[in-house]
Amino acid sequence: MSKNIVITIGREFGSGGREIGQKVAQALDIGFFDKNLIDIAAKKSGMDSSLLYQADEKASNPFFSAYLPSGSEYGTINDRLFWTQSSIIKDLAEKQSCVIVGRCADYVLADYENCLHVFVYAPLEDRIERIMERYLIDTPHAAKKEIHREDKVRKSYYQYYTDLKWGISAGKHLSIDSSFLGIDKTVDLILDIIQKKWNIN
Amino acid sequence: MSKNIVITIGREFGSGGREIGQKVAQALDIGFFDKNLIDIAAKKSGMDSSLLYQADEKASNPFFSAYLPSGSEYGTINDRLFWTQSSIIKDLAEKQSCVIVGRCADYVLADYENCLHVFVYAPLEDRIERIMERYLIDTPHAAKKEIHREDKVRKSYYQYYTDLKWGISAGKHLSIDSSFLGIDKTVDLILDIIQKKWNIN
Repeated sequence: MSKNIVITIGREFGSGGREIGQKVAQALDIGFFDKNLIDIAAKKSGMDSSLLYQADEKASNPFFSAYLPSGSEYGTINDRLFWTQSSIIKDLAEKQSCVIVGRCADYVLADYENCLHVFVYAPLEDRIERIMERYLIDTPHAAKKEIHREDKVRKSYYQYYTDLKWGISAGKHLSIDSSFLGIDKTVDLILDIIQKKWNIN
Repeated sequence: MSKNIVITIGREFGSGGREIGQKVAQALDIGFFDKNLIDIAAKKSGMDSSLLYQADEKASNPFFSAYLPSGSEYGTINDRLFWTQSSIIKDLAEKQSCVIVGRCADYVLADYENCLHVFVYAPLEDRIERIMERYLIDTPHAAKKEIHREDKVRKSYYQYYTDLKWGISAGKHLSIDSSFLGIDKTVDLILDIIQKKWNIN
């Protein structure tokens, strides 16, 4: 690949966005980053990774978020994680082609060229089915509750750090219902777009 | 083509959504419907087409909308046009493959199979450029004003008749920023999706 391209993927819980991102990265033989950004952030910041995992993709909350020792530059673990991850994401974009899932990466890289910003969603019934299978949840009702809870967390995280609305087209190049073509053909479609844009495949 | 497929296109003003729809229809050699639905509605309803043109894609307004003669089944020209167009859109979907731009067609056909519901948008600066060229508007400021006005009209029309939010992913299979690939490659992308879904091209 002659130049770096970065594909960022926002996603509804249970939409298959992460799997799509992984398969796009595999097909292009490029890096894939999602939760593993936390370990990189832990190394970079010297903070405890178990604390960072708790704060992952969650908005700061003045009442419940863990505060850093006084004298620290940042208020909460969540803020510190967000800013550390943002700086790692920018570094990655300078150095390599990759797929980044979540972490407001579309917002962090809004001024970067050679990015494709995607949002993946799906009808609730498809997400329920996926979540039940993936997390071995017994009932559709429990899966639905988990979906609403997780979407709410992601939404408030995204809106807290970006001041943009989560899940709408602003800042995205493409939003796609993964149930329309299914996971593998959606992956192919994203590869088509990359090929059309940058002649890369 | 062995079965009917219908592509509906919602669009921000100046995003090129209509041109994309036209080119998709041409490529597939299928019908294309947008404002011409008004003439069909005029014929079907026996109403004056010049009145219908004024009401096109506008929400009913109890103060300013033209009222039909008392005793009529519907309140305003706008409502009558919406319901007549909706019935025409359903007829079309039963009888032929086609592209339909605007007119809440995604909502009207929400229960129909073999539909691809698309929303086309673009960054404001690209829309300003397009609108200036297309409508021979002199200044970016005037174009921007026109874009905001027209988007507002479309938004209130869509939300009035569908109770859904305009421009977001709900009810759409795909939302795309037409400036990312440009008009012609966006057309190709939509043709790719149709091919992947229905093996049609």
